[in-house]
Amino acid sequence: MTKAWPGNYFEDFAVGQEIVHGTPRTVTEGDIALYVALTGSRFALQSATTFAQSVGLAAAPVDDLLVFHIVFGKTVPEISLNAVANLGYAECRFLARVQAGDTLSTTSTVIGVKENSNKQTGTVWVRSTGVNQRDEVVLDYVRWVMVRKRDEASPAPEATVPKLEAALKPAELFVPPGFAPAGFDAALSASPHRWGDYAAGEKIDHVDGMTIEEAEHAMATRLYQNTAKVHFNQFTEARGRFGRRLIYGGHIISLARAHSFNGLGNAWLLAGINAGRHAAPTFAGDTIFAWTEVLERAELPGRADVGALRLRTYATKNLPCAEHPASGDQVVLDLDYWALLPR
Amino acid sequence: MTKAWPGNYFEDFAVGQEIVHGTPRTVTEGDIALYVALTGSRFALQSATTFAQSVGLAAAPVDDLLVFHIVFGKTVPEISLNAVANLGYAECRFLARVQAGDTLSTTSTVIGVKENSNKQTGTVWVRSTGVNQRDEVVLDYVRWVMVRKRDEASPAPEATVPKLEAALKPAELFVPPGFAPAGFDAALSASPHRWGDYAAGEKIDHVDGMTIEEAEHAMATRLYQNTAKVHFNQFTEARGRFGRRLIYGGHIISLARAHSFNGLGNAWLLAGINAGRHAAPTFAGDTIFAWTEVLERAELPGRADVGALRLRTYATKNLPCAEHPASGDQVVLDLDYWALLPR
Amino acid sequence: MTKAWPGNYFEDFAVGQEIVHGTPRTVTEGDIALYVALTGSRFALQSATTFAQSVGLAAAPVDDLLVFHIVFGKTVPEISLNAVANLGYAECRFLARVQAGDTLSTTSTVIGVKENSNKQTGTVWVRSTGVNQRDEVVLDYVRWVMVRKRDEASPAPEATVPKLEAALKPAELFVPPGFAPAGFDAALSASPHRWGDYAAGEKIDHVDGMTIEEAEHAMATRLYQNTAKVHFNQFTEARGRFGRRLIYGGHIISLARAHSFNGLGNAWLLAGINAGRHAAPTFAGDTIFAWTEVLERAELPGRADVGALRLRTYATKNLPCAEHPASGDQVVLDLDYWALLPR
Repeated sequence: MTKAWPGNYFEDFAVGQEIVHGTPRTVTEGDIALYVALTGSRFALQSATTFAQSVGLAAAPVDDLLVFHIVFGKTVPEISLNAVANLGYAECRFLARVQAGDTLSTTSTVIGVKENSNKQTGTVWVRSTGVNQRDEVVLDYVRWVMVRKRDEASPAPEATVPKLEAALKPAELFVPPGFAPAGFDAALSASPHRWGDYAAGEKIDHVDGMTIEEAEHAMATRLYQNTAKVHFNQFTEARGRFGRRLIYGGHIISLARAHSFNGLGNAWLLAGINAGRHAAPTFAGDTIFAWTEVLERAELPGRADVGALRLRTYATKNLPCAEHPASGDQVVLDLDYWALLPR
Repeated sequence: MTKAWPGNYFEDFAVGQEIVHGTPRTVTEGDIALYVALTGSRFALQSATTFAQSVGLAAAPVDDLLVFHIVFGKTVPEISLNAVANLGYAECRFLARVQAGDTLSTTSTVIGVKENSNKQTGTVWVRSTGVNQRDEVVLDYVRWVMVRKRDEASPAPEATVPKLEAALKPAELFVPPGFAPAGFDAALSASPHRWGDYAAGEKIDHVDGMTIEEAEHAMATRLYQNTAKVHFNQFTEARGRFGRRLIYGGHIISLARAHSFNGLGNAWLLAGINAGRHAAPTFAGDTIFAWTEVLERAELPGRADVGALRLRTYATKNLPCAEHPASGDQVVLDLDYWALLPR
Repeated sequence: MTKAWPGNYFEDFAVGQEIVHGTPRTVTEGDIALYVALTGSRFALQSATTFAQSVGLAAAPVDDLLVFHIVFGKTVPEISLNAVANLGYAECRFLARVQAGDTLSTTSTVIGVKENSNKQTGTVWVRSTGVNQRDEVVLDYVRWVMVRKRDEASPAPEATVPKLEAALKPAELFVPPGFAPAGFDAALSASPHRWGDYAAGEKIDHVDGMTIEEAEHAMATRLYQNTAKVHFNQFTEARGRFGRRLIYGGHIISLARAHSFNGLGNAWLLAGINAGRHAAPTFAGDTIFAWTEVLERAELPGRADVGALRLRTYATKNLPCAEHPASGDQVVLDLDYWALLPR
């Protein structure tokens, strides 16, 4: 019996099952530099210790999406190595902030299973939790994936489909302790726009386009120790559905977020992801654009200095976003999330 | 009115105008490692703490060009987002050295404007200053760019063309406090050649060639948070002048400087850049070579242990430099600068 | 006479000659992050400070192969700049572990020379030693290379061929001070398999494939400050033997080692390399697979908690390893080494 890990199949998941994922990861300044080099992110809060300290934080927080990708990457070997598709995310909350030097590890709990009518696959829902070295939760989220069955003949489990919130409520959003952004320097953040300057229904084209190379998405995905095979192995993918390596959907989220600096320069922190859908696959050579619709402007309980914007960011491939495209083959990402801004 | 930043046009610049650039940047060991991985730089002073300490510095200084690129990158959104061309550099002085952990930010002052006769563009001169978190100037330099007018009909401003030094004088060059290189270990620096071993007129072929990939120049340019569109967006550039993404000229400077180790292994520090010209565009797939002519050997006031060499380094594409090519379509860089060497 | 370094030719080497290599290197968290991004390595011991401390180490050790590549890279300018081929490695011992912040430098001693019968080349054997800033040996190894003669007419030196061990003996292997892995957390290491679970003759397919891009191997090789020309210069290589840039063999070793996590997840530390052969060249676009045969299970003197496995890892290009291929054009690496595992 081989010692190489085959991954779990649909039959291996049961509601209530807890999974400790391997390879904890100490996040370093090296990871942060690579994240900048691979995405072009330039929010002042994450970029400069001095700026972070000027708004009350002890240190520049690690980019929320870098944290997400590392926490997520840990789950791949047990959750999605045999997945056919990553179907969605929900109830993702960013809690304790991460600093360089913190160590992240991830556990998951299976909260739903439902066999598909074709009896070849099923959907598995997991709630995954990333913690730091002090066992503080830094992130938790639900995702669901379509997973192959090992044996088509094995009986279907009782279907359990979890009830998920359509969106986190403002009162569920977490503001980092000490965060006091009201007096921030708008020249240094490169944006004068505060929470109150945005209105529901407002649409913002983030203008810039970024073309992705194979080396870039593969480096990003390896940096997160994400082992999903479809991103790395051209020998196998050449014989597969697309004939090519697929880009990790999280890399597209990161590029869209980096683009969103242009128009949302003070949306420094993610507070939650309500829903996310990788609407179409992306490949090396694609140029990613993005635009955002402001869905809602929400006050936070007891805070006159910080507010939340519910944003819906779309990313496209090879299609500039001046017309705010929300559907069609070139829309590759539809992400509904909460960001925190100074008031 | 969109919140995305459109960049400044020629009409937006006026002599005396001061601009605070956004996104200060804490330079880390991660940035330094990426700089080595992207350029192949291997000067002993920047590579090893121990070597830096052996010549009197507290820590290995961050590569001068990495500092230059970060300080420069900050200026792009306000100065050159709508530039047609980067025309030149002058009076660039490297002052306080940067260590990992320092935070850099940049301000610029407009020192000249002159509309072009075609009334579609004008030249803008700025002096940009990079400072650290203690407000010490680490770098200042003048550059001039050709910028589009927003409206061809807008009236021309009064022309102001700054007088610039053809070259920094040796007495204007800055030696880091504590720097005491006379007793350096030539085996560790991999070069026995001291300041006095070079003579004006000497020509050095740096021999090596380095081929650039799209992923490499794009990662370098993003690392510097330089947002110039032409480097990143193949979708748009495919319809543009060259049909391809253009490589950031600063990446060519860095490759030429890294090549120059072979022949100038003890030219550890840049003291100033007198003039720089990107003589021709470069694209992914080009192989960069370089050679240097020693223009002048200058003593520094009060220093018997450190001297300056004024060097003119040419980089070429797809053309080895044994014949010291100084003109022609394959010469891509012509850089006149001062380096410090042990005597 | 040019100051650019031409490299040594066969005539320049003599038995007993000692060479101090240049450019010492401080290893940082930036280097470590890049190593992960370029190879996908995910052994828990190197990935997380917390895990390293849970098994008795003060900090996460730098990946042994990253140390090897940096120490090796230093030797290229003096040993193999004019090499035709890297013929083999032997007696490689990993001694003091390296932490972020340590500075590595390398010296070599020539231990053998033998001219080839064609009088155009000769074989040079060197023992290279990497030390840290406290002059503790972190690594030593023998390699031999075929080097061009400068002048075919120069007389052959007396042939000296060193006697090398076929394999290090278990008693020669070094266990880091304080290392106490017996109680490790198998969920975090992502493998339940201890030393005693492996048996001589066991064959493990590591399953995964990784396709290499030009930017990736070039960045890795520059990170190690390895200056071998064949990896970087497409202009020259286009006119050369393969028409393409060759991938540094060490990058293949690192990919095979990273793949080996899948099946050898607790083989955290390399203790020695007995022999290594780059059986065929690899190029960008190749997909690397790997498998391992367990050659021997050895107890270590006085240790009930740590054991050694002698492993033979083969890497292939564009050939999955389910059938355990050990010969043929697609086998690119044959590496015989000792790893340490918890008992």
